[in-house]
Amino acid sequence: MKLKHLILAAIAPTLVAGTGLAYAQFKKPEDAIKYRQSAFTVMANSFGKIAAVVKGEAPFNKDEVAKNAAVVAMISTLPWQAFGPGTEGGNALPGVWSDNAKFKAAGEKMQLAVASLNTAAQSGDQEAIKKAFGAAGATCKGCHDDFKKK
Amino acid sequence: MKLKHLILAAIAPTLVAGTGLAYAQFKKPEDAIKYRQSAFTVMANSFGKIAAVVKGEAPFNKDEVAKNAAVVAMISTLPWQAFGPGTEGGNALPGVWSDNAKFKAAGEKMQLAVASLNTAAQSGDQEAIKKAFGAAGATCKGCHDDFKKK
Repeated sequence: MKLKHLILAAIAPTLVAGTGLAYAQFKKPEDAIKYRQSAFTVMANSFGKIAAVVKGEAPFNKDEVAKNAAVVAMISTLPWQAFGPGTEGGNALPGVWSDNAKFKAAGEKMQLAVASLNTAAQSGDQEAIKKAFGAAGATCKGCHDDFKKK
Repeated sequence: MKLKHLILAAIAPTLVAGTGLAYAQFKKPEDAIKYRQSAFTVMANSFGKIAAVVKGEAPFNKDEVAKNAAVVAMISTLPWQAFGPGTEGGNALPGVWSDNAKFKAAGEKMQLAVASLNTAAQSGDQEAIKKAFGAAGATCKGCHDDFKKK
């Protein structure tokens, strides 16, 4: 079993539990939309701080990058519970629901990529961080291209 | 040095760094307001899930409570960087800026309380969770009473 499968095995129960119980916790669809957008906003901020370091626009501070990568990795597990049936809208394209298997796969791919980024960030290896950051960024873009309004 | 001082010592550099570099990262005050509100939205969701368990409205699942407490503890460190000078507004009362020392103290008190809640949640001790949850909830309310619009 490869490392990425081990990570997926660790993450999967959370995903499944989240998806199953998911919608019940939000009283209104707007609450679900607000929640998932909030999660992405917080995640994007920390991801953006790592981006600035990778691009050389901000100095490399190991602890800061490690903290931001941990935030991204943790929050990456959260928004999916808020894409349940009946929560269409916001910035999400209809494909989230009509092609849900593809959407879920894209979400899981992102979670694996940011988990790898977090591993690299905790090590402090700048080359590894740069490589993992690029791979993670590609999963953001891939999913946005297919499932997020322009 | 008591445990809470140790925790504060661990958290403090993040707070200071966050407050110092803070505002520069947000291009517009609206971005800072959106960010801090998003962080509180995500935190409140996980806190609310723990609340449901503590109140007996949801079954106790150790892993779920531990995950939610970890989310709360991590996100509790984030919103403060988005209350910099020039970011007045949103749901924040003017006291955040005019009585900033009191606001910061309230924020630090909350972070310590949710760190304790996280410790209790990781242990799985339901009595400890209940006690720590009550203490954490009181710090939310205390700060909201003084610094958040009704």
